[in-house]
Amino acid sequence: MIANLFAGLPSTVTVDEQLATILQRPGLRIERIVSTGQASPPDFWYDQDEGEWVVLLQGEAKLRFADEADARHLRAGDCIDIAAHRRHRVDWTAPGQVSIWLAVFYAA
Amino acid sequence: MIANLFAGLPSTVTVDEQLATILQRPGLRIERIVSTGQASPPDFWYDQDEGEWVVLLQGEAKLRFADEADARHLRAGDCIDIAAHRRHRVDWTAPGQVSIWLAVFYAA
Repeated sequence: MIANLFAGLPSTVTVDEQLATILQRPGLRIERIVSTGQASPPDFWYDQDEGEWVVLLQGEAKLRFADEADARHLRAGDCIDIAAHRRHRVDWTAPGQVSIWLAVFYAA
Repeated sequence: MIANLFAGLPSTVTVDEQLATILQRPGLRIERIVSTGQASPPDFWYDQDEGEWVVLLQGEAKLRFADEADARHLRAGDCIDIAAHRRHRVDWTAPGQVSIWLAVFYAA
């Protein structure tokens, strides 16, 4: 269980994203995702049964929707609500930086 | 609608807390609460029908539970899950600072 969102962060670049479930309740899941330069695999798209509200708390990222031409460049504090089954991917996260996402998944 | 959690903050001390609903879905509500030294009124206790997961993103606060002797001193990143009907109050937020809460209310 995470007691502080900014604790336990990697000090160096990690191979994979770090994912931690913070809260799980019926129809609700809160996760912290820590990226250090990772992106979604080529041609991979998330297609989720749940809605997802996500905020980038620290770092920088480019979030791409399949129904939009250009990726959205997210900076600290930017938040976005992703409807269930709206296909999206992470095109880029800032290399050499620790980017922290807080994601709230909810029953659609 | 808030697009960035750190935007639109007061530059000076405000009389009341600023409250903004960021997302509202069945059984789910996400709010940003901005405090500049406010506390709950004397002898006031929150007693909520919903569960509340809350994180203090910036600033400092003291959160008191009716079933605990001492207030919990929260600093940036500290998060806590408050069960429905667990009585609690905000004893203190840092004066002269902007404290930012992100609260996720969910059906209990």
